[in-house]
Amino acid sequence: MTGNLIERLRHAVGSSGVISDPDEMAGYLTDWRNAYTGTAAAVVRPGSTEEVAAVVELCHQAGVEVVPQGGNTGLCGGAVPDSSGRQLVLSLTRMRRIRDLDVANQTITVEAGVILQSVQDAAAAAGQLFPLSLGAEGSCTIGGNLATNAGGTGVLRYGTMRDLTLGVEVVLPDGRIWNGLRGLRKDNTGYDLKQLFIGAEGTLGVITAAVLKLFPAVRSRATAWVALPGPQAAVDLIGILRAVAGDRLTGFEIMSRQSVDFVLRHVSGARDPFGERHLWYALVELSDSLPVAGLDEVIETALGEAVERGLVVDAVVASSAAQAAALWALREGISEAQNHEGPSLKHDVTVPVSRIPALVERADRALDEAVPGVRVVTYGHIGDGNLHYNLSKPVGGDDDEFRSRASDLARIIYDQTSALEGSISAEHGLGQSKREIIADYKDSYELELMRGIKQLFDPRGLMNPGKVLPG
Amino acid sequence: MTGNLIERLRHAVGSSGVISDPDEMAGYLTDWRNAYTGTAAAVVRPGSTEEVAAVVELCHQAGVEVVPQGGNTGLCGGAVPDSSGRQLVLSLTRMRRIRDLDVANQTITVEAGVILQSVQDAAAAAGQLFPLSLGAEGSCTIGGNLATNAGGTGVLRYGTMRDLTLGVEVVLPDGRIWNGLRGLRKDNTGYDLKQLFIGAEGTLGVITAAVLKLFPAVRSRATAWVALPGPQAAVDLIGILRAVAGDRLTGFEIMSRQSVDFVLRHVSGARDPFGERHLWYALVELSDSLPVAGLDEVIETALGEAVERGLVVDAVVASSAAQAAALWALREGISEAQNHEGPSLKHDVTVPVSRIPALVERADRALDEAVPGVRVVTYGHIGDGNLHYNLSKPVGGDDDEFRSRASDLARIIYDQTSALEGSISAEHGLGQSKREIIADYKDSYELELMRGIKQLFDPRGLMNPGKVLPG
Repeated sequence: MTGNLIERLRHAVGSSGVISDPDEMAGYLTDWRNAYTGTAAAVVRPGSTEEVAAVVELCHQAGVEVVPQGGNTGLCGGAVPDSSGRQLVLSLTRMRRIRDLDVANQTITVEAGVILQSVQDAAAAAGQLFPLSLGAEGSCTIGGNLATNAGGTGVLRYGTMRDLTLGVEVVLPDGRIWNGLRGLRKDNTGYDLKQLFIGAEGTLGVITAAVLKLFPAVRSRATAWVALPGPQAAVDLIGILRAVAGDRLTGFEIMSRQSVDFVLRHVSGARDPFGERHLWYALVELSDSLPVAGLDEVIETALGEAVERGLVVDAVVASSAAQAAALWALREGISEAQNHEGPSLKHDVTVPVSRIPALVERADRALDEAVPGVRVVTYGHIGDGNLHYNLSKPVGGDDDEFRSRASDLARIIYDQTSALEGSISAEHGLGQSKREIIADYKDSYELELMRGIKQLFDPRGLMNPGKVLPG
Repeated sequence: MTGNLIERLRHAVGSSGVISDPDEMAGYLTDWRNAYTGTAAAVVRPGSTEEVAAVVELCHQAGVEVVPQGGNTGLCGGAVPDSSGRQLVLSLTRMRRIRDLDVANQTITVEAGVILQSVQDAAAAAGQLFPLSLGAEGSCTIGGNLATNAGGTGVLRYGTMRDLTLGVEVVLPDGRIWNGLRGLRKDNTGYDLKQLFIGAEGTLGVITAAVLKLFPAVRSRATAWVALPGPQAAVDLIGILRAVAGDRLTGFEIMSRQSVDFVLRHVSGARDPFGERHLWYALVELSDSLPVAGLDEVIETALGEAVERGLVVDAVVASSAAQAAALWALREGISEAQNHEGPSLKHDVTVPVSRIPALVERADRALDEAVPGVRVVTYGHIGDGNLHYNLSKPVGGDDDEFRSRASDLARIIYDQTSALEGSISAEHGLGQSKREIIADYKDSYELELMRGIKQLFDPRGLMNPGKVLPG
């Protein structure tokens, strides 16, 4: 990148918006887990859509590759530049304006750099709910949520980020702005272009703002911790809960005993809700917009039926918000707890909910054959078919030896997932980590269509190259 | 079209699947309202995806244009061929297999030719709900619902057809089959191609099957008929209902007095629920998956608050299913009743819900200035911002003179809609009727992107030409 371009960038976004000092750039060049690192010619932080457009246009003219970045909390390296030192990181974090909140239309219009939690808070302040909820919500941005079509714990009721989005504003690879910021629930006037940008991980353009859906605020909640004999019982329990509670079912997380063991061992204050050990656990949450909704009665009716049918071995319903929080902490502590047990090999897959039991049975067996004693930390949002199929080394095993099996073990999980018509990336995207392996699991015709779209929108290949599409 | 091609088509789909006799073709060449008529070289009715692929490939080789067609119930002429006599109508009505119903995954997999009501029925038989509901549900097909991204009365709670679709199977314009029939609620492995075909009205390919979402069955319902001073009161009432009833609000239809007057005059058995005349009415529906859900109490609480705030002038809550059906009949009779009053000029627009009052005020005034005494039959699903802004001639006016004003009057409604950031086609699509006028309301850059996608998928322009994209 020529000094000339840097100068033009400074002119476009102001001096403080262009970072080229290596120390100041460092935080933008490595993801939060320290799993991916790159270098960059500069980091540019525009403050408005027009400034984003100016930056992208300058890069387009100069043939410089652009890596859009939000909160840098991705898990697949999608927002980290390569090692060439020629790419430009385009950070959206200065674009943090909430442009509009329309209660009657149940929409909020926000810029890409707004932190997810700020959107949740703004909605709550207006007596509304923005339901996207995930671990990184305190630091991830709406732009990143859109680029990766983020998921999380509320998807079984509210859908993914795509489902929550009515309109987007995008800077295309040549620097032109497409204003698709419509706040409409019905609009059938041609191809739904916004859908291409959502989930494209910045490879087709830069999303600069979006109109998102709001929902009625939640005013009552019931939370239960349940012991189960296995995943099939969990799937059957979801069926009972849906039949009884309908849309009130807003959370259903499953955890293997291994997952809970790690939390009890490593998370201070964690306590087993039951006296006995069980094979599997589920965390169930019902919620309602009515302040007095009888949810405890509803959840007890459903669990009673499940106990009778032998699906539930033991259960406790939280009697206070503090107790509910303690139950959620058992679930949310898993990822962190696993780090204390050596390297974690993480996988993020979905299958149809009905096939979860087959996936667990087949994958567990194959994994144990490949690495006897491997500890399988299975947990996730099985209400929407999503499991985080994470692995720790056998007790006493060697870290490096275990790491060396990473790609074999991933293959095992992906092969079983694929055989059950599942997806090898449920909610984390492809980024750089899965861009090559996806070619083995997606049919070549679909990849050809994807490449055609990439070529159409970004013929010079300047938008986040090396991500999503196999090389 | 050469006889040679007809012969090959017969070979591909069987003799009974190719219709070239003019009398037998007639039903496929005119839409159900007799608003659009065309001619065709043949009507082909394949019975499987492979047969669809064979037909499309043959047409591709021969350079013959293809017009996909479902139940032929569209309102914009999108499934009617042109008058050249060279196009081929591809009817999907023989593809009526329900391929799978997976209760645990809450999905149903159906072919394009299945009637919407058959899907509703199959879901109900499994204790589930398929929530898409619209006037033509007894004859429209799932393929048509997908091609036009159908809406209807349940959108405020369940979304449009797009929101209800997890996967699609498509025959591309060159005859290749893309199997995107995934039943996954989370899948982030590249561009979401299905979104391009949904709502594309057959211009990018032929959808042959889809995986659709199911929901918990509705087991209780409350229905109210409400008199209101105006649209702003209706919008405010929606706010109260959402705050009190949350997701239980599954229907909110508004009707001007003019709409109700026509029904009372022309629909036998229709009866005004109130003794006095009021300016505006709303039909409110709450529903719940619980068999005993206290909905009457919930709706009465909400209406009580609305009466106190002066938003509701009078209200009646249906005390039986029969009474609820009678209230719905008042709403559903509008379109038919209007036909007795001379020509109906129909418009289907959305604005953000918060802007409905401004739209009605501005459009009504401008319409009355243009044609004094014009009777405005305003009604629709304002819970999702959608109004059917239909017009009848002034009392004693001349039919032809009124018809001659059609495009002026449409412009008035579309201009006001557009100024309020709305859409000139909410749920009917563009078809042939709005394909030219859309160019005045959509920015040229968006149309350019749409044309690029059309060119990418259908470079020879053989799929439903003359629809959607401006000429």
